[in-house]
Amino acid sequence: MKRRDFFKNTSLAAIGSAFLSPVDLLASIPANKRRSDGKTAKNIIFMVSDGMSIGTLTMANLLLQRKEGRESNWVRLYHENKVRRAMMDTASANSLVTDSAAASSSWGGGVRVNNGSLNVGPDGTEHKPILQKFKAAGKSVGCVTSVPVTHATPAGFCINNNKRGDQGEIALQYLPLKFDIMLGGGLEYFLAEKRKDKTDLFGKYKSTGYTVLQSRNDLMKLSLSSDKPVMGVFYEDGLPYALDRDHTDGLKAATPSLAEMTSQAISYLRKNKKGFVMQVEGGKVDWSAHANDVGALLYDQIAFDEAIKVAIDFAEQDQETLVVITTDHGNANPGLFSGGKANENFDKIQHFKHTNEWILKGVDRAFTVPRLIERIEAAQGIVITKDEASSLLKHFSAADADGIYNPYKLPFRELAEIQTKYTSVGWGSMDHSGDYVEVAMCGPGSELLNPFVKNTELHNLMLEATGLRA
Amino acid sequence: MKRRDFFKNTSLAAIGSAFLSPVDLLASIPANKRRSDGKTAKNIIFMVSDGMSIGTLTMANLLLQRKEGRESNWVRLYHENKVRRAMMDTASANSLVTDSAAASSSWGGGVRVNNGSLNVGPDGTEHKPILQKFKAAGKSVGCVTSVPVTHATPAGFCINNNKRGDQGEIALQYLPLKFDIMLGGGLEYFLAEKRKDKTDLFGKYKSTGYTVLQSRNDLMKLSLSSDKPVMGVFYEDGLPYALDRDHTDGLKAATPSLAEMTSQAISYLRKNKKGFVMQVEGGKVDWSAHANDVGALLYDQIAFDEAIKVAIDFAEQDQETLVVITTDHGNANPGLFSGGKANENFDKIQHFKHTNEWILKGVDRAFTVPRLIERIEAAQGIVITKDEASSLLKHFSAADADGIYNPYKLPFRELAEIQTKYTSVGWGSMDHSGDYVEVAMCGPGSELLNPFVKNTELHNLMLEATGLRA
Repeated sequence: MKRRDFFKNTSLAAIGSAFLSPVDLLASIPANKRRSDGKTAKNIIFMVSDGMSIGTLTMANLLLQRKEGRESNWVRLYHENKVRRAMMDTASANSLVTDSAAASSSWGGGVRVNNGSLNVGPDGTEHKPILQKFKAAGKSVGCVTSVPVTHATPAGFCINNNKRGDQGEIALQYLPLKFDIMLGGGLEYFLAEKRKDKTDLFGKYKSTGYTVLQSRNDLMKLSLSSDKPVMGVFYEDGLPYALDRDHTDGLKAATPSLAEMTSQAISYLRKNKKGFVMQVEGGKVDWSAHANDVGALLYDQIAFDEAIKVAIDFAEQDQETLVVITTDHGNANPGLFSGGKANENFDKIQHFKHTNEWILKGVDRAFTVPRLIERIEAAQGIVITKDEASSLLKHFSAADADGIYNPYKLPFRELAEIQTKYTSVGWGSMDHSGDYVEVAMCGPGSELLNPFVKNTELHNLMLEATGLRA
Repeated sequence: MKRRDFFKNTSLAAIGSAFLSPVDLLASIPANKRRSDGKTAKNIIFMVSDGMSIGTLTMANLLLQRKEGRESNWVRLYHENKVRRAMMDTASANSLVTDSAAASSSWGGGVRVNNGSLNVGPDGTEHKPILQKFKAAGKSVGCVTSVPVTHATPAGFCINNNKRGDQGEIALQYLPLKFDIMLGGGLEYFLAEKRKDKTDLFGKYKSTGYTVLQSRNDLMKLSLSSDKPVMGVFYEDGLPYALDRDHTDGLKAATPSLAEMTSQAISYLRKNKKGFVMQVEGGKVDWSAHANDVGALLYDQIAFDEAIKVAIDFAEQDQETLVVITTDHGNANPGLFSGGKANENFDKIQHFKHTNEWILKGVDRAFTVPRLIERIEAAQGIVITKDEASSLLKHFSAADADGIYNPYKLPFRELAEIQTKYTSVGWGSMDHSGDYVEVAMCGPGSELLNPFVKNTELHNLMLEATGLRA
């Protein structure tokens, strides 16, 4: 069979000539060989804006330029020529369009698995997650995320489970790992009263020697000299959207920002002389794209961008840290689309105080048209028409709880369609896309990045950059 | 006023710190200074896949991988590490979302102008188009496009006109320039019977010393040793979509492909010892994105990719040619979106024989539901439901001729919405997007490319690469 024919119509076709990339070839180098061709990275900070289409990166930068007269930290790194870039093919084993579990597994386990699976191949083979490898090598490890710590993207660096949805089980799987610091949301997977098995997981974590954090205050007071593993869970499900957090009394004091978690985690991890490896996920960028929620999307992308600054500031001072900045896949392919008023419409987003989620969660069938118009104006400064409000109200159905990203079937799509007229931001879908995505790297090891990579290559690159082989 | 404040809410905000880029600073170097920091480019081939969102580049590559077991020439350049890449900000003077006229003017004149204008600033200032500069410097120059030669993207390299729509006038403006070779569509702007002023422009071109080409055969027989300027116009409006051309008797013989035009143009231009500068535009990539016509889009992107191969093959042999490969803006932000059948659905596009345009142009109100279902199946192998066909038929209105991209108001959007269920390809809009876009370069001068550029910087880069200053 010719190589060309081998690729046809198989999921391997998505891999293409990446088979021949230098990074793959390096996999044959003996284990634990120190790098001779460049400086070895002591630390890695792997940053994922989950579900970030190129339009998300673009519009967050435009919003910052027009609102604050500055560019994003991500784009600034390009302007200052501080990073090496690549285009990344994000496919999973069974689809050209990955989910976050397979995507994180590609980096975490180095092998493409089916959507929904965490480092378990189609034949049941378990691939050792990269933070387990680094922990075994003596480094400190951790994850920071704005969604549950048990969610697919952090989990793909930590554990094996063929069902990403088993978050209650994943919360148990974390326990024996004693990873140095895990920060995010997901209280329902730890609290006895919320768990199906009624186990008090925080009790178990404490009795196993963990420090448990449950508030921003706990996090800020964390003793940085401690050697105990830390489990910090700050909110029911995902953490609040950055936009809502900024404009809701109490939320800012109760919950940490992604940048704050990143900063504390780095401070906690950096004391290990053998170095550390951590993942930072802006997980709600993906959730907001699923909801076509433009305010949530852009302000959470900016919150992720603030975490980039924390990482880069540390790395520039430290000089031994590889920083990877990327996304796992596109989502919804949002764009600022043309029309006479594109600038004026886009500028409305500067004045948003709340997300579409905030708007919709406060509405029910009892709402009147004037009340709905008023609520949207108060949240976003946009005055929709009576017809639009009336049409939107018709979509409120009785609460039922299926669907991962929209359990109560709130009319996110319908609100987004109305909003497009006012913001000029449009959406191609409410799901992930197969678009090739952006990767940026700086620090030791970044010179290993090829201009076009498949996601699994980043696994090998991290091992190679640190001088560690699987 | 602080610099930060200066940027707020103005179109200049989109420029950001690009003000400080090295390329801009080079503009202060005296004119005609030869480059001392690298090899000077003798030739430039500037390639534009008009209106190419990242999803278009991605899906064309996936289609080639799965259909033919090979990757695109564009992506191959990345895999082989042969190019320098940048992310480009595409805004115009008056909008974050450019049109093709302002975009081409940014490269062609080095200054951002308002949408709709060709190298004429908001205050009426005319900026000298880059091919006029290169022609005056003794180089041969030309344009190749799959849309009318008078269309915005070629025109932005050639002339000044504050109305891109004046294509009849632009066809007259080209006459005295005596550019070496211009190839594309647009017969209606040259033929007496089609022009408003009833002038026989081909007659004028011939009497002014031009060689006029009107068929693929004319082009293939062109005497490459001739020094006469060449005007080649091969089709009524834009050239046929590559997909329709490949599957329509006679079209392949009558009209040249973009790669064929590119090859002949290079062969014609290369004899000048002082070098040449040419633009190659895959213009119908943009038109198909406006129509959400997935078959047209992906096969025209592949036709553009074949022209890339022609350019790169020449440049690799020549070693004195800067090749720029980019787009002027995103359009419609198409994506392959997730769902259980994404691979299977996407693979249907491999079997397409005709575009949506071909389907819809052959339908009228007299069509029956079964005939429409049959026509779509014959063109694309997709069997839509009776309800879908019935709903689509309702959108056929009496012909009227306003609208640049859809003069007869054919139901492109409605057909695309039906198709999304069958192909898993979705669309965010039928208009341009403000997304940052891809730039790739190889050859002498490519080392001048910064990782993040605004479109106008490419004007300066071309002048600098060739040792020519404005």
